[in-house]
Amino acid sequence: MNVLITGGAGFLGRRLARALVDRGVLTGASGRDERIDRIVLLDVVAAEGLESSMLTPRAGDIADPHVLDLVIDADTTAIFHLAAVVSGGAEADFDLGMRVNFDATRQLLEVCRQRGHRPRIVFTSSVAVFGGDLPDLVQETTALTPQSSYGAEKAMAELLLADYTRKGFVDGRALRLPTVSVRPGRPNAALSSFASSIIREPLNGEPAVCPVDRGARVWILSPDRAVQCLIRGHELPSETLGIFRSVNLPGLSVTVGEMVAALERLAGPEVVRLIRWEPDARVQRIVASWPGAFETSRAEALGFRGDADIESVIRAHMATQAKS
Amino acid sequence: MNVLITGGAGFLGRRLARALVDRGVLTGASGRDERIDRIVLLDVVAAEGLESSMLTPRAGDIADPHVLDLVIDADTTAIFHLAAVVSGGAEADFDLGMRVNFDATRQLLEVCRQRGHRPRIVFTSSVAVFGGDLPDLVQETTALTPQSSYGAEKAMAELLLADYTRKGFVDGRALRLPTVSVRPGRPNAALSSFASSIIREPLNGEPAVCPVDRGARVWILSPDRAVQCLIRGHELPSETLGIFRSVNLPGLSVTVGEMVAALERLAGPEVVRLIRWEPDARVQRIVASWPGAFETSRAEALGFRGDADIESVIRAHMATQAKS
Repeated sequence: MNVLITGGAGFLGRRLARALVDRGVLTGASGRDERIDRIVLLDVVAAEGLESSMLTPRAGDIADPHVLDLVIDADTTAIFHLAAVVSGGAEADFDLGMRVNFDATRQLLEVCRQRGHRPRIVFTSSVAVFGGDLPDLVQETTALTPQSSYGAEKAMAELLLADYTRKGFVDGRALRLPTVSVRPGRPNAALSSFASSIIREPLNGEPAVCPVDRGARVWILSPDRAVQCLIRGHELPSETLGIFRSVNLPGLSVTVGEMVAALERLAGPEVVRLIRWEPDARVQRIVASWPGAFETSRAEALGFRGDADIESVIRAHMATQAKS
Repeated sequence: MNVLITGGAGFLGRRLARALVDRGVLTGASGRDERIDRIVLLDVVAAEGLESSMLTPRAGDIADPHVLDLVIDADTTAIFHLAAVVSGGAEADFDLGMRVNFDATRQLLEVCRQRGHRPRIVFTSSVAVFGGDLPDLVQETTALTPQSSYGAEKAMAELLLADYTRKGFVDGRALRLPTVSVRPGRPNAALSSFASSIIREPLNGEPAVCPVDRGARVWILSPDRAVQCLIRGHELPSETLGIFRSVNLPGLSVTVGEMVAALERLAGPEVVRLIRWEPDARVQRIVASWPGAFETSRAEALGFRGDADIESVIRAHMATQAKS
């Protein structure tokens, strides 16, 4: 089988690609392990410095149907659709967000429909599809009331994926990812970027700005667990999801204060002093509209696993950094 | 003010237009009654035989931005967006359904955004946005899990309308209409068409086919009440809806058997004998996926009113037919 990863030059796409190379196989529609022949990493810029000849970088605009047509062939039976404009970017540039987060997803679905080979598509949605006045524990049966354009685009894409699946055009699965933390690299335009910055930068001896107060609650998943969930999302037999193709992935519900306290226990008070607290009303309001805890028993029954505690999340990040 | 009604040549659009001509005014963003200068009825074919010089028929493709650009000017502060491909049509022709039910709605929103005059837009959504394994009483906070392309397209359009409203581009309101019954005229491709046929055709001395059994439950609203709800939907002050722009309109929860029993009481057994019972598994399955009852206390608090009972619905239809 060929695998396509959109957003394949991003940190999660590359980490997923590495995990797939290590496995060498993926369970597909046959119900058996199938050998992975090729993994295409599509992104706006071609991924560089790849570790395996199995990995094929491609540069192109995901919203361009001709680009998608070139990277999806009849053997591309596994698609991981990670490409997105993050929340802050989609809020600042409405047209760009619609184009990448919604139109490109539609193009992807449409190219697969035209191809007629009914691939499995794992789509990374987000807990930002929820918002506003929510129950303390968000269910999968809770209505989607996004309070950001990013969330609205992801919610529309989920509906489209479900209908393309119902019609038999594709076999779609939407995974609502918690905030992935601790991300490596640099801060990005995601409004949740602080949830990595406040751990990552101080550990690098650099200052970090926290735009929300200590009481702000976030719902996080470590990069390693996120990759495992993406693979699990692909390998699930289609019928186990039934008509409801979206899954609230398990996460860890922690306050920013608890994250910083864990960091202090693991790395000491001088590290924590590198965090500057500068609450930003706009960010604080949007983050507060994201729910802090979810009912995830369905995801757990389906074999998705979250992290044990915040200390293990930080420790895993420290171990990865020490290796690289 | 100028009013635009898309789907304006359809029965509901024309009935709404007539009600607006009779009123002569509509409460807009100012909070006061504003005089209606012109009502544009846009549809694929121009509406004919109009009763008032205030009514301006326009023929055009609603999915064509140039058409929308011509019918929306800075004075078009009231838009009733009724144009749609009905459920059966959207299920049979996926591309047509997406084009009319979703893309055209997006074009409409986009033309308004470009115009910058922030009109009120009343969008007719549908209870078909719900589906699958639902609670006995559907809430507005129940997740949208449509089991038809029509429902998926309406659900996506609701999300888009809400985000355009949140961004301040338009002032949108989505009304989830129950099945409108009894519709005048001929059967159409809506899967719910039988809910009018089984009353209308026998009263005309014609046979009707019922594709679901007597136990099938429908959620209905009479045409007159539907028109009143559309006007109410427009006149509501924006802030009364808050961030949740979609409203489950009040309806009447009746079984097909109860409808036919009421028809028999009002018109006699010989009329009811004109109904041929021919259950169709496909229609029955989709109709069964539509919920039969909704929590509508919010709609009622907002001033929306449904029908008292099934006999009054049938009597209103008989009175209208006697007049015409």
